[in-house]
Amino acid sequence: MPVEIEQPNVGLSNIAISDTHGENSPYFAGWKAYDENPYNESSNPSGVIQMGLAENQVSFDLIEEYLEQHPEASTWGQGAPGFRENALFQDYHGLKSFRQAMASFMEKIRGGRAKFDPDRVVLTAGATAANELLTFILADPGDALLVPTPYYPGFDRDIRWRTGVKIVPIHCESSNNFQITPPAMEAAYKEAESMKMKVRGVLITNPSNPLGATIQRAVLGEILDFVTRKNIHLVSDEIYSGSAFSASEFVSIADILETHKYKNSERVHIVYSLSKDLGLPGFRVGTIYSYNDKVVTTARRMSSFTLISSQTQHLLACMLSNEKFTENYIKTNRERLRKRYEMIIEGLKSSGIECLKGNAGLFCWMNLSPLLEKPTREGELTLWDSILKQVKLNISPGSSCHCSEPGWFRVCFANMSEQTLEVALKRIHDFMQEREREK
Amino acid sequence: MPVEIEQPNVGLSNIAISDTHGENSPYFAGWKAYDENPYNESSNPSGVIQMGLAENQVSFDLIEEYLEQHPEASTWGQGAPGFRENALFQDYHGLKSFRQAMASFMEKIRGGRAKFDPDRVVLTAGATAANELLTFILADPGDALLVPTPYYPGFDRDIRWRTGVKIVPIHCESSNNFQITPPAMEAAYKEAESMKMKVRGVLITNPSNPLGATIQRAVLGEILDFVTRKNIHLVSDEIYSGSAFSASEFVSIADILETHKYKNSERVHIVYSLSKDLGLPGFRVGTIYSYNDKVVTTARRMSSFTLISSQTQHLLACMLSNEKFTENYIKTNRERLRKRYEMIIEGLKSSGIECLKGNAGLFCWMNLSPLLEKPTREGELTLWDSILKQVKLNISPGSSCHCSEPGWFRVCFANMSEQTLEVALKRIHDFMQEREREK
Repeated sequence: MPVEIEQPNVGLSNIAISDTHGENSPYFAGWKAYDENPYNESSNPSGVIQMGLAENQVSFDLIEEYLEQHPEASTWGQGAPGFRENALFQDYHGLKSFRQAMASFMEKIRGGRAKFDPDRVVLTAGATAANELLTFILADPGDALLVPTPYYPGFDRDIRWRTGVKIVPIHCESSNNFQITPPAMEAAYKEAESMKMKVRGVLITNPSNPLGATIQRAVLGEILDFVTRKNIHLVSDEIYSGSAFSASEFVSIADILETHKYKNSERVHIVYSLSKDLGLPGFRVGTIYSYNDKVVTTARRMSSFTLISSQTQHLLACMLSNEKFTENYIKTNRERLRKRYEMIIEGLKSSGIECLKGNAGLFCWMNLSPLLEKPTREGELTLWDSILKQVKLNISPGSSCHCSEPGWFRVCFANMSEQTLEVALKRIHDFMQEREREK
Repeated sequence: MPVEIEQPNVGLSNIAISDTHGENSPYFAGWKAYDENPYNESSNPSGVIQMGLAENQVSFDLIEEYLEQHPEASTWGQGAPGFRENALFQDYHGLKSFRQAMASFMEKIRGGRAKFDPDRVVLTAGATAANELLTFILADPGDALLVPTPYYPGFDRDIRWRTGVKIVPIHCESSNNFQITPPAMEAAYKEAESMKMKVRGVLITNPSNPLGATIQRAVLGEILDFVTRKNIHLVSDEIYSGSAFSASEFVSIADILETHKYKNSERVHIVYSLSKDLGLPGFRVGTIYSYNDKVVTTARRMSSFTLISSQTQHLLACMLSNEKFTENYIKTNRERLRKRYEMIIEGLKSSGIECLKGNAGLFCWMNLSPLLEKPTREGELTLWDSILKQVKLNISPGSSCHCSEPGWFRVCFANMSEQTLEVALKRIHDFMQEREREK
């Protein structure tokens, strides 16, 4: 027998062996705990209730009703005419009918206060890809984007992993309801400079995930001034824009540009998606809307790596171009989300828990800092762990969102039935009462 | 009025301003010429015939027939049961039913000679994304992959653009029918080393695009030996495996590993897609099949940037798990492609044109080197330009595929009707006769 020559394992890239994918965060650990023991009203009533997943299930009936009434959206009819053209359609511009429908849907969500040109709509397979793609275009490896905290934990992966770009936090604080301020932006900028990083832009999420609140018009103006003064980019991730509880409470950066007659707009890029507002994350529909021609051209080329199935484009082009459906959907979905929000806020209040005042999104930002034994990240994670294991609720600790103050948690309320939400609120109520008794 | 302070334009990344996207190649220029003046039998009989697009339209009737008989694949039935679950499904593992169907389809294409484990199937939105994703995992910026020439022009974008990885060509020659040889691999390896690049792998395409031929079993063995000796990776892009004219003529790297009892398989990764064999490029369905556990885990995480619509996964899971459909499709599609191939080869032969002997794919590799005025890249492009503008055929010049010998062209035959192919052959015949007369 020949002697086996021992070989080193074949090597992988630094990206492959790095931990920048961020899956070791408690944000994802909680998901696993839920997966292992998921709550079910009848079959597993003592299981974990998933309140760490920002999914919108409150308006599915409207979409189902549309699909039932409009089979042409899902099929190609008898003899399947149109199937060939659709199956072959891989142009990275995307279906024109779909881009038009997307632009029009984005206008409707903003109460018609901003216009969107279908030729500036670049399609991507989800906002995850959209944010990464923009980062590849706006920044070189080692450069920094400034991101207000608390922020969506996935950004650590999306913005950094494959691009080599860094995130420098803009620290926001509870004392002013976590609003972004010019001094905080300036401090982050200086911090990046002190680490010899070139700052290439600011990335905001409006409405904010995890805060569940929109950014005020005046604050948006200050952010736009800041990026203009620094001659850097502004990415506005507006994937929850249709989930603001009323159209008037949400101001898009597009509104601000419209008011400013699109001055300095070449540095502004909007990210949107149908995963949250329509509750279709499985369909992987994201978009970049840029006011910069070169960014549009480059993003379109780059979207070759992350195109949307033409079958899905066809379905959504039909659905979103139906004015009656979209108007009713946007209105009804907003009302239902507000109702859910009020239900959870009332329930928590009756247990003695306060939340940040919210007006958007699929979650609230809950303040449990009075419950911490120690006002530290460790104290927060200890509390999080006991809520997960004893109360059997998976919520997201603020530290996983890089919040600089311990004791805040994101609690999702739209990925379950009202009955399940009631069970969750009852569990929290019992937990709080037990703690009172222990005191 | 305030004085306008002039500002430099806001900067973009090096990736954004580089030309590595490769769209300036004649490969794409020819597409534009077609788009501007597309041939149509009745409305534009003197237009450009597109023979530069590797699309498979010869078996659509089989898919259409399936869809007609199986509406459950496209819809969610009355009341749309299952729609919610499907629309919400964004797990990066993909639908289990779809991964199983893909693994089974890949086995069928290989005549059952190799086994595929559904848990190693990583889904991506097309092979474009699959190849890029693997490159991110296997190589660091500045490292090299060795790629035999001629190769698919898109690799210049997919492998290099966002990853910063380099391609070093393995030069193959007409004298041995463009087969890959150990000395050619060794020369490329040395070439990379002389440029101070670290070689991380070899990327082969089997069946080859643009050659339209499979790689022989013995050659695959030599390639596997080479990468093992160098302790580097082997990526085998097998997106045309179902388009080999008979199952016995195609040997997958998976067959070789099976024979070798999977020794050294941790360095081997297969790329597959349904864009070519099923003719569904619009649906964006690609896959990575790796024998390396760490690559599978990392690729799955990374696939977050390029997931397949769950709607499309559902349709294809239904279709591909239908044994009767898949067996008939694979067999019939192969027969039809062979018939088309024979038709074009005969037609070209009667005009005095020789092609490389092929046995797979949607194109043939045509030798027009006897027609070149000068045996150079410029000579080839001059001939290409006159074929595009006078003969009104868009074919792909070998130089766009980095072929080291001028005068070869890739000619696609499956993206049109037989009638259109006859018109194209007639045009070539007339062109050749005219040249004879001029002599």
